[in-house]
Amino acid sequence: MAGWRDGHNYETGAALRRACRSGAHQGPTNGCAPGYVQVNLVILPQAEAQSFQAFCLANPASCPLLAVSEPGGTALPGLGTDIDVRTDAPSYRVFREGTPVAEASDLGDYWRNDLVAAAIGCSFSFEQALAASDLSVRHNELGRNVPMYVTDWPCTPAGPFQGPTVVSMRPYTPAQAIRAVQVTSRYPRVHGAPLHLGAPEQIGVADLTHPDYGDSPDIRTGELPVFWGCGVTPQVALQAARPAIAFTHKPGHMLVTDRHHEELAAL
Amino acid sequence: MAGWRDGHNYETGAALRRACRSGAHQGPTNGCAPGYVQVNLVILPQAEAQSFQAFCLANPASCPLLAVSEPGGTALPGLGTDIDVRTDAPSYRVFREGTPVAEASDLGDYWRNDLVAAAIGCSFSFEQALAASDLSVRHNELGRNVPMYVTDWPCTPAGPFQGPTVVSMRPYTPAQAIRAVQVTSRYPRVHGAPLHLGAPEQIGVADLTHPDYGDSPDIRTGELPVFWGCGVTPQVALQAARPAIAFTHKPGHMLVTDRHHEELAAL
Repeated sequence: MAGWRDGHNYETGAALRRACRSGAHQGPTNGCAPGYVQVNLVILPQAEAQSFQAFCLANPASCPLLAVSEPGGTALPGLGTDIDVRTDAPSYRVFREGTPVAEASDLGDYWRNDLVAAAIGCSFSFEQALAASDLSVRHNELGRNVPMYVTDWPCTPAGPFQGPTVVSMRPYTPAQAIRAVQVTSRYPRVHGAPLHLGAPEQIGVADLTHPDYGDSPDIRTGELPVFWGCGVTPQVALQAARPAIAFTHKPGHMLVTDRHHEELAAL
Repeated sequence: MAGWRDGHNYETGAALRRACRSGAHQGPTNGCAPGYVQVNLVILPQAEAQSFQAFCLANPASCPLLAVSEPGGTALPGLGTDIDVRTDAPSYRVFREGTPVAEASDLGDYWRNDLVAAAIGCSFSFEQALAASDLSVRHNELGRNVPMYVTDWPCTPAGPFQGPTVVSMRPYTPAQAIRAVQVTSRYPRVHGAPLHLGAPEQIGVADLTHPDYGDSPDIRTGELPVFWGCGVTPQVALQAARPAIAFTHKPGHMLVTDRHHEELAAL
Protein backbone atom coordinates (compact mmCIF):
# COMPACT_ATOMS: atom_id res chain seq x y z
CA MET A 1 0.00 0.00 0.00
CA ALA A 2 3.01 2.30 -0.26
CA GLY A 3 1.74 3.59 -3.58
CA TRP A 4 -1.65 4.43 -2.06
CA ARG A 5 -0.09 6.29 0.83
CA ASP A 6 2.28 8.37 -1.24
CA GLY A 7 -0.29 8.93 -4.01
CA HIS A 8 -0.60 12.65 -3.61
CA ASN A 9 3.12 13.13 -4.05
CA TYR A 10 3.03 12.79 -7.83
CA GLU A 11 2.90 16.17 -9.52
CA THR A 12 2.06 14.88 -12.97
CA GLY A 13 0.75 11.86 -14.78
CA ALA A 14 4.20 11.40 -16.32
CA ALA A 15 5.83 11.28 -12.88
CA LEU A 16 3.34 8.67 -11.70
CA ARG A 17 3.90 6.57 -14.84
CA ARG A 18 7.65 6.66 -14.25
CA ALA A 19 7.08 5.41 -10.69
CA CYS A 20 4.88 2.59 -12.00
CA ARG A 21 7.47 1.69 -14.63
CA SER A 22 10.24 1.43 -12.04
CA GLY A 23 8.04 -0.52 -9.62
CA ALA A 24 8.06 2.28 -7.03
CA HIS A 25 4.29 2.67 -7.29
CA GLN A 26 2.23 -0.52 -7.28
CA GLY A 27 -0.94 0.61 -5.49
CA PRO A 28 -4.27 2.13 -6.54
CA THR A 29 -4.24 5.44 -8.37
CA ASN A 30 -7.36 7.14 -6.98
CA GLY A 31 -6.20 10.56 -5.75
CA CYS A 32 -2.76 10.24 -7.35
CA ALA A 33 -1.56 12.95 -9.75
CA PRO A 34 -4.67 15.07 -9.16
CA GLY A 35 -6.11 16.70 -12.27
CA TYR A 36 -4.74 14.12 -14.69
CA VAL A 37 -7.06 11.82 -16.63
CA GLN A 38 -6.90 8.15 -15.62
CA VAL A 39 -7.97 5.42 -18.02
CA ASN A 40 -9.08 1.80 -18.08
CA LEU A 41 -6.91 -0.48 -20.22
CA VAL A 42 -8.04 -3.47 -22.27
CA ILE A 43 -5.37 -5.23 -24.32
CA LEU A 44 -6.32 -7.90 -26.87
CA PRO A 45 -4.96 -9.62 -29.97
CA GLN A 46 -5.72 -7.61 -33.09
CA ALA A 47 -8.75 -9.56 -34.33
CA GLU A 48 -10.57 -9.42 -31.00
CA ALA A 49 -9.38 -5.85 -30.48
CA GLN A 50 -11.18 -4.74 -33.63
CA SER A 51 -14.44 -6.28 -32.40
CA PHE A 52 -13.89 -4.78 -28.96
CA GLN A 53 -13.44 -1.30 -30.41
CA ALA A 54 -16.64 -1.76 -32.40
CA PHE A 55 -18.37 -2.75 -29.15
CA CYS A 56 -17.07 0.34 -27.35
CA LEU A 57 -18.10 2.69 -30.12
CA ALA A 58 -21.58 1.14 -30.20
CA ASN A 59 -21.96 1.62 -26.43
CA PRO A 60 -20.22 4.94 -25.79
CA ALA A 61 -21.96 5.87 -22.54
CA SER A 62 -20.63 2.81 -20.72
CA CYS A 63 -17.51 2.17 -22.86
CA PRO A 64 -16.14 5.59 -23.91
CA LEU A 65 -13.12 4.83 -26.08
CA LEU A 66 -10.42 7.46 -25.62
CA ALA A 67 -7.47 6.03 -27.55
CA VAL A 68 -6.13 2.86 -29.15
CA SER A 69 -2.60 1.72 -29.93
CA GLU A 70 -1.12 0.56 -33.21
CA PRO A 71 -0.95 -3.27 -33.44
CA GLY A 72 2.02 -4.26 -31.31
CA GLY A 73 2.56 -0.62 -30.44
CA THR A 74 2.96 0.36 -26.81
CA ALA A 75 1.98 4.04 -27.12
CA LEU A 76 -1.48 5.57 -26.81
CA PRO A 77 -1.52 8.45 -29.31
CA GLY A 78 -3.05 11.58 -27.88
CA LEU A 79 -2.88 10.59 -24.21
CA GLY A 80 0.79 11.21 -23.47
CA THR A 81 4.17 11.43 -25.11
CA ASP A 82 5.98 8.53 -23.47
CA ILE A 83 3.24 6.09 -22.50
CA ASP A 84 4.20 2.41 -22.51
CA VAL A 85 1.06 0.35 -21.99
CA ARG A 86 3.17 -2.66 -20.93
CA THR A 87 4.61 -1.00 -17.85
CA ASP A 88 2.82 2.21 -16.94
CA ALA A 89 -0.16 0.94 -14.97
CA PRO A 90 0.71 -0.02 -11.37
CA SER A 91 -0.59 -3.55 -11.81
CA TYR A 92 -2.24 -5.74 -14.47
CA ARG A 93 -4.59 -8.70 -14.71
CA VAL A 94 -4.14 -11.55 -17.18
CA PHE A 95 -7.26 -13.24 -18.59
CA ARG A 96 -7.44 -16.59 -20.38
CA GLU A 97 -10.77 -17.55 -21.97
CA GLY A 98 -12.36 -14.61 -20.18
CA THR A 99 -11.21 -15.65 -16.71
CA PRO A 100 -8.59 -13.79 -14.68
CA VAL A 101 -5.72 -16.19 -14.08
CA ALA A 102 -2.86 -13.99 -12.87
CA GLU A 103 -1.71 -10.54 -11.85
CA ALA A 104 1.48 -8.93 -13.12
CA SER A 105 3.39 -5.76 -12.34
CA ASP A 106 4.16 -5.40 -16.04
CA LEU A 107 3.32 -7.16 -19.30
CA GLY A 108 6.88 -7.53 -20.62
CA ASP A 109 6.83 -11.31 -20.40
CA TYR A 110 3.45 -11.51 -22.12
CA TRP A 111 3.92 -9.01 -24.94
CA ARG A 112 3.20 -10.00 -28.53
CA ASN A 113 3.41 -8.00 -31.73
CA ASP A 114 -0.27 -8.46 -32.49
CA LEU A 115 -1.56 -6.96 -29.24
CA VAL A 116 -3.66 -3.79 -29.36
CA ALA A 117 -4.41 -1.62 -26.33
CA ALA A 118 -7.64 0.32 -25.83
CA ALA A 119 -7.98 3.14 -23.29
CA ILE A 120 -11.46 3.74 -21.92
CA GLY A 121 -12.53 6.84 -20.01
CA CYS A 122 -13.04 6.61 -16.27
CA SER A 123 -15.53 8.20 -13.89
CA PHE A 124 -12.69 9.79 -11.88
CA SER A 125 -12.74 12.56 -14.50
CA PHE A 126 -16.40 13.46 -14.18
CA GLU A 127 -16.31 13.04 -10.40
CA GLN A 128 -13.66 15.74 -10.33
CA ALA A 129 -16.03 17.99 -12.32
CA LEU A 130 -18.92 17.16 -9.98
CA ALA A 131 -16.86 17.99 -6.91
CA ALA A 132 -15.68 21.23 -8.53
CA SER A 133 -19.36 22.18 -8.94
CA ASP A 134 -20.08 21.54 -5.23
CA LEU A 135 -21.75 18.24 -6.09
CA SER A 136 -20.01 16.21 -3.45
CA VAL A 137 -19.47 12.55 -4.38
CA ARG A 138 -20.87 10.49 -1.50
CA HIS A 139 -18.73 7.35 -1.78
CA ASN A 140 -15.58 9.45 -1.94
CA GLU A 141 -16.68 11.39 1.16
CA LEU A 142 -17.08 8.06 2.94
CA GLY A 143 -13.87 6.52 1.61
CA ARG A 144 -15.82 3.76 -0.12
CA ASN A 145 -15.87 2.33 -3.61
CA VAL A 146 -18.74 3.48 -5.85
CA PRO A 147 -21.76 1.12 -5.83
CA MET A 148 -22.28 -0.54 -9.21
CA TYR A 149 -25.27 -2.46 -10.57
CA VAL A 150 -25.89 -4.83 -13.47
CA THR A 151 -28.95 -3.53 -15.36
CA ASP A 152 -31.35 -5.33 -17.68
CA TRP A 153 -30.32 -3.01 -20.53
CA PRO A 154 -28.36 -5.09 -23.06
CA CYS A 155 -25.41 -3.48 -24.77
CA THR A 156 -25.34 -3.41 -28.56
CA PRO A 157 -23.24 -6.52 -29.33
CA ALA A 158 -20.22 -6.55 -31.65
CA GLY A 159 -18.58 -9.83 -32.62
CA PRO A 160 -18.18 -11.92 -29.45
CA PHE A 161 -18.57 -8.90 -27.17
CA GLN A 162 -21.95 -8.55 -25.50
CA GLY A 163 -23.58 -8.25 -22.12
CA PRO A 164 -25.60 -5.99 -19.88
CA THR A 165 -24.96 -2.32 -19.24
CA VAL A 166 -23.39 -1.88 -15.81
CA VAL A 167 -24.04 1.43 -14.05
CA SER A 168 -22.46 3.27 -11.15
CA MET A 169 -24.67 5.17 -8.71
CA ARG A 170 -24.25 8.46 -6.89
CA PRO A 171 -27.09 9.87 -4.73
CA TYR A 172 -28.20 13.48 -5.16
CA THR A 173 -31.18 15.65 -4.31
CA PRO A 174 -33.38 16.46 -7.33
CA ALA A 175 -31.87 19.92 -7.81
CA GLN A 176 -28.35 18.46 -7.49
CA ALA A 177 -29.28 15.70 -9.95
CA ILE A 178 -30.35 18.31 -12.51
CA ARG A 179 -27.05 20.13 -12.03
CA ALA A 180 -25.16 16.82 -12.23
CA VAL A 181 -26.76 16.17 -15.63
CA GLN A 182 -25.51 19.55 -16.83
CA VAL A 183 -22.02 19.10 -15.40
CA THR A 184 -21.41 15.57 -16.66
CA SER A 185 -22.99 16.24 -20.08
CA ARG A 186 -19.85 18.26 -20.76
CA TYR A 187 -17.76 15.07 -20.57
CA PRO A 188 -19.07 12.61 -23.18
CA ARG A 189 -15.62 10.97 -23.42
CA VAL A 190 -15.75 9.88 -19.77
CA HIS A 191 -19.32 8.46 -19.57
CA GLY A 192 -21.09 11.82 -19.97
CA ALA A 193 -24.61 12.37 -18.67
CA PRO A 194 -26.44 9.91 -16.43
CA LEU A 195 -28.34 7.09 -18.10
CA HIS A 196 -31.09 6.94 -15.50
CA LEU A 197 -32.29 8.45 -12.24
CA GLY A 198 -34.80 7.44 -9.62
CA ALA A 199 -36.85 4.23 -10.07
CA PRO A 200 -34.14 1.51 -10.00
CA GLU A 201 -36.72 -1.15 -10.90
CA GLN A 202 -37.01 0.45 -14.35
CA ILE A 203 -33.46 -0.67 -15.14
CA GLY A 204 -33.76 -4.10 -13.55
CA VAL A 205 -32.16 -3.21 -10.21
CA ALA A 206 -34.29 -4.88 -7.54
CA ASP A 207 -32.27 -4.01 -4.46
CA LEU A 208 -30.19 -0.84 -4.31
CA THR A 209 -28.73 -1.78 -0.95
CA HIS A 210 -26.85 -4.73 -2.44
CA PRO A 211 -24.79 -3.55 -5.42
CA ASP A 212 -23.30 -6.12 -7.80
CA TYR A 213 -19.87 -4.47 -7.49
CA GLY A 214 -18.36 -1.93 -5.11
CA ASP A 215 -19.52 -0.92 -1.67
CA SER A 216 -23.04 -0.47 -0.34
CA PRO A 217 -24.64 2.92 -0.99
CA ASP A 218 -25.62 5.64 1.46
CA ILE A 219 -28.78 7.23 0.05
CA ARG A 220 -30.28 9.83 2.37
CA THR A 221 -33.83 11.15 2.75
CA GLY A 222 -34.82 13.30 -0.21
CA GLU A 223 -32.11 11.92 -2.48
CA LEU A 224 -32.52 10.13 -5.80
CA PRO A 225 -30.15 7.45 -7.04
CA VAL A 226 -28.47 8.79 -10.20
CA PHE A 227 -26.96 6.19 -12.53
CA TRP A 228 -24.08 6.62 -14.98
CA GLY A 229 -22.62 4.16 -17.48
CA CYS A 230 -19.76 2.28 -15.84
CA GLY A 231 -16.40 0.96 -17.02
CA VAL A 232 -17.22 -2.47 -15.58
CA THR A 233 -19.46 -2.88 -18.66
CA PRO A 234 -16.53 -3.59 -21.01
CA GLN A 235 -15.00 -5.93 -18.43
CA VAL A 236 -18.20 -7.98 -18.30
CA ALA A 237 -18.30 -8.06 -22.12
CA LEU A 238 -14.65 -9.14 -22.17
CA GLN A 239 -15.40 -12.06 -19.87
CA ALA A 240 -18.42 -13.02 -22.02
CA ALA A 241 -16.31 -12.96 -25.20
CA ARG A 242 -13.80 -15.44 -23.74
CA PRO A 243 -10.81 -14.41 -25.85
CA ALA A 244 -7.86 -16.82 -25.63
CA ILE A 245 -5.74 -14.10 -24.03
CA ALA A 246 -6.46 -10.60 -22.73
CA PHE A 247 -4.96 -8.11 -20.31
CA THR A 248 -6.42 -5.27 -18.30
CA HIS A 249 -5.22 -2.94 -15.59
CA LYS A 250 -5.96 -4.26 -12.09
CA PRO A 251 -9.20 -2.60 -10.90
CA GLY A 252 -8.48 0.78 -9.32
CA HIS A 253 -4.89 0.66 -10.58
CA MET A 254 -5.35 2.86 -13.64
CA LEU A 255 -3.06 4.17 -16.33
CA VAL A 256 -2.58 7.89 -15.69
CA THR A 257 -2.20 10.12 -18.75
CA ASP A 258 -0.84 13.58 -19.54
CA ARG A 259 -4.27 14.95 -20.29
CA HIS A 260 -6.03 17.24 -17.82
CA HIS A 261 -9.64 16.44 -16.96
CA GLU A 262 -10.84 19.75 -18.32
CA GLU A 263 -9.32 19.00 -21.72
CA LEU A 264 -12.03 16.34 -22.10
CA ALA A 265 -14.87 18.84 -21.70
CA ALA A 266 -16.96 19.07 -24.86
CA LEU A 267 -17.97 22.65 -24.07
CA MET B 1 -61.92 32.35 -31.54
CA ALA B 2 -61.28 33.38 -35.13
CA GLY B 3 -57.69 34.18 -34.22
CA TRP B 4 -57.20 30.76 -32.69
CA ARG B 5 -58.59 29.00 -35.73
CA ASP B 6 -56.54 30.92 -38.23
CA GLY B 7 -53.42 30.86 -36.05
CA HIS B 8 -51.28 28.77 -38.34
CA ASN B 9 -51.86 31.14 -41.21
CA TYR B 10 -49.35 33.71 -39.97
CA GLU B 11 -46.01 33.24 -41.65
CA THR B 12 -44.06 35.53 -39.35
CA GLY B 13 -44.24 37.22 -35.99
CA ALA B 14 -44.50 40.56 -37.79
CA ALA B 15 -47.55 39.39 -39.75
CA LEU B 16 -49.25 38.21 -36.56
CA ARG B 17 -48.49 41.52 -34.84
CA ARG B 18 -50.04 43.43 -37.74
CA ALA B 19 -53.18 41.30 -37.39
CA CYS B 20 -53.29 42.03 -33.65
CA ARG B 21 -52.79 45.73 -34.29
CA SER B 22 -55.69 45.88 -36.76
CA GLY B 23 -57.95 43.80 -34.52
CA ALA B 24 -58.09 40.91 -37.00
CA HIS B 25 -56.44 38.56 -34.46
CA GLN B 26 -57.81 38.69 -30.92
CA GLY B 27 -57.38 35.04 -29.80
CA PRO B 28 -54.64 33.02 -28.13
CA THR B 29 -51.28 32.77 -29.84
CA ASN B 30 -50.24 29.19 -29.06
CA GLY B 31 -49.36 27.61 -32.40
CA CYS B 32 -49.49 30.93 -34.28
CA ALA B 33 -46.46 32.05 -36.31
CA PRO B 34 -44.57 28.80 -35.59
CA GLY B 35 -40.88 29.22 -34.83
CA TYR B 36 -41.18 32.78 -33.53
CA VAL B 37 -40.50 33.61 -29.89
CA GLN B 38 -43.56 34.66 -27.89
CA VAL B 39 -43.19 36.75 -24.74
CA ASN B 40 -45.06 37.70 -21.60
CA LEU B 41 -45.63 41.44 -21.16
CA VAL B 42 -45.66 43.38 -17.88
CA ILE B 43 -46.12 47.15 -18.17
CA LEU B 44 -45.65 49.39 -15.12
CA PRO B 45 -44.93 53.00 -14.22
CA GLN B 46 -41.22 53.69 -14.19
CA ALA B 47 -40.59 53.49 -10.43
CA GLU B 48 -42.31 50.12 -10.03
CA ALA B 49 -40.84 48.94 -13.35
CA GLN B 50 -37.34 49.38 -11.98
CA SER B 51 -38.14 47.23 -8.94
CA PHE B 52 -39.85 44.69 -11.16
CA GLN B 53 -36.78 44.39 -13.39
CA ALA B 54 -34.64 43.89 -10.29
CA PHE B 55 -37.04 41.15 -9.20
CA CYS B 56 -36.82 39.42 -12.59
CA LEU B 57 -33.04 39.55 -12.68
CA ALA B 58 -32.87 38.12 -9.15
CA ASN B 59 -35.16 35.22 -10.13
CA PRO B 60 -34.09 34.42 -13.68
CA ALA B 61 -35.32 30.82 -13.85
CA SER B 62 -38.93 31.82 -13.28
CA CYS B 63 -38.77 35.43 -14.58
CA PRO B 64 -36.32 35.45 -17.51
CA LEU B 65 -36.18 39.07 -18.65
CA LEU B 66 -35.71 39.29 -22.43
CA ALA B 67 -36.15 43.01 -23.15
CA VAL B 68 -37.41 46.26 -21.67
CA SER B 69 -38.64 49.46 -23.28
CA GLU B 70 -37.51 53.02 -22.76
CA PRO B 71 -39.75 54.96 -20.36
CA GLY B 72 -42.83 55.86 -22.38
CA GLY B 73 -41.36 54.04 -25.36
CA THR B 74 -43.48 51.48 -27.17
CA ALA B 75 -40.67 49.45 -28.77
CA LEU B 76 -38.84 46.42 -27.35
CA PRO B 77 -35.25 46.77 -28.57
CA GLY B 78 -33.85 43.51 -29.83
CA LEU B 79 -37.14 41.68 -30.23
CA GLY B 80 -38.44 43.19 -33.45
CA THR B 81 -38.18 46.26 -35.64
CA ASP B 82 -41.74 47.57 -35.48
CA ILE B 83 -43.09 46.31 -32.14
CA ASP B 84 -45.66 48.54 -30.45
CA VAL B 85 -46.33 47.16 -26.98
CA ARG B 86 -49.63 49.11 -26.80
CA THR B 87 -51.28 47.26 -29.69
CA ASP B 88 -49.35 44.14 -30.71
CA ALA B 89 -50.62 41.56 -28.23
CA PRO B 90 -54.07 40.18 -29.12
CA SER B 91 -55.56 41.23 -25.79
CA TYR B 92 -54.49 42.88 -22.51
CA ARG B 93 -55.43 42.90 -18.86
CA VAL B 94 -55.58 46.05 -16.73
CA PHE B 95 -54.61 45.77 -13.03
CA ARG B 96 -55.36 48.28 -10.29
CA GLU B 97 -53.80 47.70 -6.87
CA GLY B 98 -52.75 44.25 -8.08
CA THR B 99 -56.24 43.15 -9.08
CA PRO B 100 -57.35 42.62 -12.69
CA VAL B 101 -60.17 45.06 -13.35
CA ALA B 102 -60.58 45.08 -17.12
CA GLU B 103 -59.52 43.62 -20.44
CA ALA B 104 -58.62 45.70 -23.47
CA SER B 105 -57.82 44.98 -27.09
CA ASP B 106 -55.15 47.70 -26.97
CA LEU B 107 -53.67 50.09 -24.42
CA GLY B 108 -54.06 53.31 -26.43
CA ASP B 109 -56.56 54.80 -23.98
CA TYR B 110 -54.38 53.92 -21.00
CA TRP B 111 -50.95 54.95 -22.26
CA ARG B 112 -48.77 57.29 -20.20
CA ASN B 113 -45.31 58.62 -20.85
CA ASP B 114 -43.90 57.04 -17.70
CA LEU B 115 -44.87 53.47 -18.57
CA VAL B 116 -42.15 50.84 -19.07
CA ALA B 117 -42.73 47.46 -20.70
CA ALA B 118 -40.87 44.30 -19.75
CA ALA B 119 -40.82 41.19 -21.97
CA ILE B 120 -40.36 37.88 -20.18
CA GLY B 121 -39.46 34.60 -21.90
CA CYS B 122 -42.12 31.95 -22.31
CA SER B 123 -42.07 28.16 -22.13
CA PHE B 124 -43.41 27.91 -25.71
CA SER B 125 -39.79 28.37 -26.82
CA PHE B 126 -38.33 25.49 -24.85
CA GLU B 127 -41.33 23.28 -25.58
CA GLN B 128 -40.52 23.71 -29.25
CA ALA B 129 -36.96 22.54 -28.50
CA LEU B 130 -38.24 19.58 -26.46
CA ALA B 131 -40.57 18.50 -29.25
CA ALA B 132 -37.77 18.87 -31.81
CA SER B 133 -35.75 16.43 -29.65
CA ASP B 134 -38.58 13.85 -29.66
CA LEU B 135 -39.49 14.83 -26.10
CA SER B 136 -43.19 15.09 -26.71
CA VAL B 137 -44.96 17.62 -24.48
CA ARG B 138 -47.89 15.81 -22.88
CA HIS B 139 -50.30 18.70 -22.30
CA ASN B 140 -49.86 19.83 -25.90
CA GLU B 141 -50.54 16.29 -27.13
CA LEU B 142 -53.78 16.34 -25.13
CA GLY B 143 -54.76 19.88 -26.12
CA ARG B 144 -54.62 21.00 -22.49
CA ASN B 145 -53.00 23.88 -20.66
CA VAL B 146 -49.78 23.03 -18.78
CA PRO B 147 -50.34 22.19 -15.07
CA MET B 148 -48.76 24.80 -12.78
CA TYR B 149 -48.07 24.67 -9.04
CA VAL B 150 -47.27 27.21 -6.34
CA THR B 151 -44.16 25.96 -4.52
CA ASP B 152 -42.87 26.77 -1.05
CA TRP B 153 -39.70 28.25 -2.57
CA PRO B 154 -39.77 32.00 -2.01
CA CYS B 155 -38.45 34.24 -4.76
CA THR B 156 -35.71 36.72 -3.90
CA PRO B 157 -37.74 39.89 -3.22
CA ALA B 158 -37.05 43.29 -4.79
CA GLY B 159 -38.90 46.38 -3.62
CA PRO B 160 -42.59 45.49 -3.33
CA PHE B 161 -42.22 42.43 -5.58
CA GLN B 162 -42.17 39.10 -3.77
CA GLY B 163 -43.89 35.77 -3.64
CA PRO B 164 -43.47 32.05 -4.20
CA THR B 165 -41.86 30.42 -7.20
CA VAL B 166 -44.52 28.97 -9.47
CA VAL B 167 -43.52 25.98 -11.60
CA SER B 168 -44.95 24.27 -14.64
CA MET B 169 -44.84 20.48 -14.87
CA ARG B 170 -44.23 18.10 -17.77
CA PRO B 171 -44.03 14.32 -17.16
CA TYR B 172 -41.15 12.31 -18.61
CA THR B 173 -39.48 8.95 -18.07
CA PRO B 174 -36.13 9.18 -16.26
CA ALA B 175 -34.09 8.92 -19.47
CA GLN B 176 -36.31 11.53 -21.13
CA ALA B 177 -35.98 13.77 -18.06
CA ILE B 178 -32.19 13.62 -18.33
CA ARG B 179 -32.42 14.55 -22.02
CA ALA B 180 -34.91 17.32 -21.18
CA VAL B 181 -32.38 18.82 -18.75
CA GLN B 182 -29.81 18.87 -21.55
CA VAL B 183 -32.18 20.33 -24.14
CA THR B 184 -33.67 23.07 -21.98
CA SER B 185 -30.32 24.01 -20.41
CA ARG B 186 -29.54 25.53 -23.82
CA TYR B 187 -32.32 28.11 -23.31
CA PRO B 188 -31.58 30.07 -20.12
CA ARG B 189 -33.49 33.09 -21.48
CA VAL B 190 -36.75 31.11 -21.59
CA HIS B 191 -36.66 29.39 -18.17
CA GLY B 192 -33.74 27.07 -18.95
CA ALA B 193 -33.22 23.79 -17.09
CA PRO B 194 -35.80 22.29 -14.74
CA LEU B 195 -35.77 23.44 -11.12
CA HIS B 196 -36.88 20.11 -9.70
CA LEU B 197 -37.91 16.59 -10.63
CA GLY B 198 -39.67 13.76 -8.82
CA ALA B 199 -40.70 14.21 -5.16
CA PRO B 200 -43.26 17.06 -5.38
CA GLU B 201 -43.47 17.21 -1.57
CA GLN B 202 -39.91 18.55 -1.54
CA ILE B 203 -41.14 21.76 -3.19
CA GLY B 204 -44.32 22.05 -1.14
CA VAL B 205 -46.66 20.49 -3.69
CA ALA B 206 -48.96 18.18 -1.74
CA ASP B 207 -51.27 17.04 -4.53
CA LEU B 208 -50.04 16.83 -8.11
CA THR B 209 -53.50 15.98 -9.40
CA HIS B 210 -54.84 19.41 -8.47
CA PRO B 211 -52.60 22.11 -9.97
CA ASP B 212 -52.95 25.70 -8.80
CA TYR B 213 -53.20 26.89 -12.41
CA GLY B 214 -53.80 25.19 -15.74
CA ASP B 215 -55.29 21.78 -16.41
CA SER B 216 -54.88 18.53 -14.49
CA PRO B 217 -51.81 16.48 -15.36
CA ASP B 218 -51.57 13.07 -17.03
CA ILE B 219 -48.58 11.33 -15.44
CA ARG B 220 -48.18 7.74 -16.62
CA THR B 221 -46.53 4.72 -15.02
CA GLY B 222 -42.77 5.07 -14.94
CA GLU B 223 -42.82 8.84 -15.45
CA LEU B 224 -41.43 11.52 -13.16
CA PRO B 225 -42.93 14.99 -12.83
CA VAL B 226 -40.35 17.48 -14.11
CA PHE B 227 -40.77 21.08 -12.94
CA TRP B 228 -39.64 24.26 -14.69
CA GLY B 229 -39.80 27.87 -13.53
CA CYS B 230 -43.04 29.41 -14.78
CA GLY B 231 -44.06 32.84 -16.05
CA VAL B 232 -46.96 32.91 -13.60
CA THR B 233 -44.32 33.71 -10.95
CA PRO B 234 -43.97 37.38 -12.01
CA GLN B 235 -47.77 37.68 -12.24
CA VAL B 236 -48.15 36.51 -8.64
CA ALA B 237 -45.42 38.95 -7.58
CA LEU B 238 -47.18 41.72 -9.47
CA GLN B 239 -50.42 41.05 -7.61
CA ALA B 240 -48.53 41.00 -4.29
CA ALA B 241 -46.87 44.34 -5.06
CA ARG B 242 -50.26 46.04 -5.63
CA PRO B 243 -49.02 48.83 -7.91
CA ALA B 244 -51.61 51.57 -8.53
CA ILE B 245 -51.72 50.62 -12.23
CA ALA B 246 -50.25 47.80 -14.29
CA PHE B 247 -50.91 46.05 -17.58
CA THR B 248 -50.13 42.57 -18.87
CA HIS B 249 -51.01 40.53 -21.92
CA LYS B 250 -54.11 38.39 -21.39
CA PRO B 251 -52.91 34.88 -20.41
CA GLY B 252 -52.18 32.82 -23.52
CA HIS B 253 -52.47 35.91 -25.72
CA MET B 254 -48.77 36.65 -26.06
CA LEU B 255 -46.73 39.26 -27.89
CA VAL B 256 -45.01 37.49 -30.80
CA THR B 257 -41.56 38.73 -31.77
CA ASP B 258 -39.28 38.60 -34.81
CA ARG B 259 -36.80 36.33 -33.02
CA HIS B 260 -36.61 32.64 -33.85
CA HIS B 261 -36.59 30.20 -30.93
CA GLU B 262 -33.17 28.88 -31.88
CA GLU B 263 -31.66 32.37 -31.63
CA LEU B 264 -32.21 32.10 -27.87
CA ALA B 265 -30.06 28.98 -27.55
CA ALA B 266 -27.00 29.63 -25.40
CA LEU B 267 -25.03 26.92 -27.17
